[in-house]
Amino acid sequence: MTATATNQRAYNFSAGPAVLPVPVLEEVRDELLCLPGARSSLLEMSHRDKQFVDILHDAENSLRSLLGIGDDHAVLFLQGGAALQFSMIPANLLRGTGKSAAYLQTGTWGKKAIAEAKKEGDVSIAYDASGSNFDHTPGSGDYNVPDDAAYLYYCSNETIQGVQFQSEPPCPGSVPLVCDASSDFLCRPLDMEKYGILYACAQKNAGPAGVTVVVIKRDLLGIGSDKLPGYLNYKNHADNDSEWNTPPTFAIYVLGKVAKWLANDVGGLDAMEQANRTKASLLYDVIDGSGRFYTGHARPESRSIMNVTFTLPNDDLQSKFISTAAEHDLVNLKGHRSVGGIRASIYNAMPLDGVKALAGFMSDFASKNA
Amino acid sequence: MTATATNQRAYNFSAGPAVLPVPVLEEVRDELLCLPGARSSLLEMSHRDKQFVDILHDAENSLRSLLGIGDDHAVLFLQGGAALQFSMIPANLLRGTGKSAAYLQTGTWGKKAIAEAKKEGDVSIAYDASGSNFDHTPGSGDYNVPDDAAYLYYCSNETIQGVQFQSEPPCPGSVPLVCDASSDFLCRPLDMEKYGILYACAQKNAGPAGVTVVVIKRDLLGIGSDKLPGYLNYKNHADNDSEWNTPPTFAIYVLGKVAKWLANDVGGLDAMEQANRTKASLLYDVIDGSGRFYTGHARPESRSIMNVTFTLPNDDLQSKFISTAAEHDLVNLKGHRSVGGIRASIYNAMPLDGVKALAGFMSDFASKNA
Repeated sequence: MTATATNQRAYNFSAGPAVLPVPVLEEVRDELLCLPGARSSLLEMSHRDKQFVDILHDAENSLRSLLGIGDDHAVLFLQGGAALQFSMIPANLLRGTGKSAAYLQTGTWGKKAIAEAKKEGDVSIAYDASGSNFDHTPGSGDYNVPDDAAYLYYCSNETIQGVQFQSEPPCPGSVPLVCDASSDFLCRPLDMEKYGILYACAQKNAGPAGVTVVVIKRDLLGIGSDKLPGYLNYKNHADNDSEWNTPPTFAIYVLGKVAKWLANDVGGLDAMEQANRTKASLLYDVIDGSGRFYTGHARPESRSIMNVTFTLPNDDLQSKFISTAAEHDLVNLKGHRSVGGIRASIYNAMPLDGVKALAGFMSDFASKNA
Repeated sequence: MTATATNQRAYNFSAGPAVLPVPVLEEVRDELLCLPGARSSLLEMSHRDKQFVDILHDAENSLRSLLGIGDDHAVLFLQGGAALQFSMIPANLLRGTGKSAAYLQTGTWGKKAIAEAKKEGDVSIAYDASGSNFDHTPGSGDYNVPDDAAYLYYCSNETIQGVQFQSEPPCPGSVPLVCDASSDFLCRPLDMEKYGILYACAQKNAGPAGVTVVVIKRDLLGIGSDKLPGYLNYKNHADNDSEWNTPPTFAIYVLGKVAKWLANDVGGLDAMEQANRTKASLLYDVIDGSGRFYTGHARPESRSIMNVTFTLPNDDLQSKFISTAAEHDLVNLKGHRSVGGIRASIYNAMPLDGVKALAGFMSDFASKNA
């Protein structure tokens, strides 16, 4: 590859941090030295500055509008990623309640969440897909959750395995539904009334690393004890409009621009879902039509429209696939180190042309190497 | 003010997030769409990408070189700001030890830290400056710390009050010294061997909001319980080179550039301290020579070289000072809402010319309004 080529953008299939919309990046670049009206860079602006407070509220309102989030949910911008949510959720909703929390274990991230929850109280694994190497989500009737559970937790899209819930899992009306939507947040419309908590670290589909969106029903805010570390208490953040302490201002600013891009350039979440399904089908069709040269990891009914995971007949071919793809400007296709194989992450901002290029490459590679 | 003027940079005296070096901002802007060699924006790059891992290690090594941090300290890049450190420190070093932690209370941030520590165990306030409205730091012999204290905690620079420790407070050799250096990190050389933990959120002197640097002696890493929320356990972050989970990649990247600017453009921390003292003296000289038109908040021997705090004879004059200064391109001079008055934050990246302009304005304003 020439020196010039390495300074050009490629189609980036990274699982996260991941591709962002080019118009958003261009705006950020153009405003980097001096945000219009601010007399400084956004990076240099106090979080208490009215202009930044407006940026934060705009980002919140864009999310509310895209997802139809009503007043009975607070929208918080926090730090610490999903990893801190793994602890904050049980610290607020389980610790000291004497209840048990139910978890659906359908992949690596759910498993990590369970390990943290067990430190805070009693946990029951209501469904466990580890026996089939995390290749599916449960069907209706595959598990039970007691009416008095502290909450039901699931990860809507397991990034590493490429397994996605096609809709919300059944949950008793008395039990708050808690969802880690880190890697499929904003990929489709949701009925937010179903959720007690829906959270997402931004760096897959919504912005850069460093901010985590937490949408939480206000009636869950008072459950956490005053004795919790202050940062871990959702109520502190909700009572202070995400400015209990200095929020990650730049990441919120970029996230707000991504949300506006979704509303104005893409046309909202219905249009986004349709585009995502079109993109994903292109790749799954190649896999299914490859005569088993490519083997998809997820069962067809649990396939993710965000992360397409598959293997080739052997490791040598996988290595060759990755290096040859890079020569065709298709980069970051290596599967997660814990499962191997190939992973094509095709988040919202991945253009259709990028997926078409990958699908074409896959067909070509299969015909040359099968 | 004209529309043009509001789109030009001014001298920005914000207390944080705060002024950054222009050459750093220009580099960030120029690399925003495509980081050389990366084929994507830094914002889109996996934290596991070798190029990003190198950026993280470069940032760490720049800090090690600037401050003379040896191998017996780990350098961590965390999220959650100083507010999360208020809890992480006692959660790791106090909870369950049966010991007491000693705190020096010399301002608003120390007071907040104490409130969080009390949730985790026994706390003794070894020195309390609240009785004199937090206008000074203790002198040698003003307090005692038992040899078996869990640690001695202080805030080296109280941003709101403009009160700074001129050197490390005395501490028994058996007791880890813990310092919140959020608002004077990298303003001067330090003898890092004296510190058990020194931490700083970046957004005052070292980078954008969203990353907190924690320098911690490795022998303190094992004290925290395995039962701690994983994100709160320093050992997890140290064992994984700050990649236990996705770190705030962009903030680390900018912080690394600021550290290189300090080393290469400024000439290191000795030169930085000299420049900071020169800048601070310009303002304190105007205050002291104003015939009590300006009244400094901090006692002269405790004055901060980062945040210069003072009042004018009445509120009307203070409001007029702030609005007139803004017309002269001197912005964000309003004191913190909890104490009022004027605060000029003159962090590392505030150029001498900006401070000269402010000093000139102050003299002029005093002669016209005294």
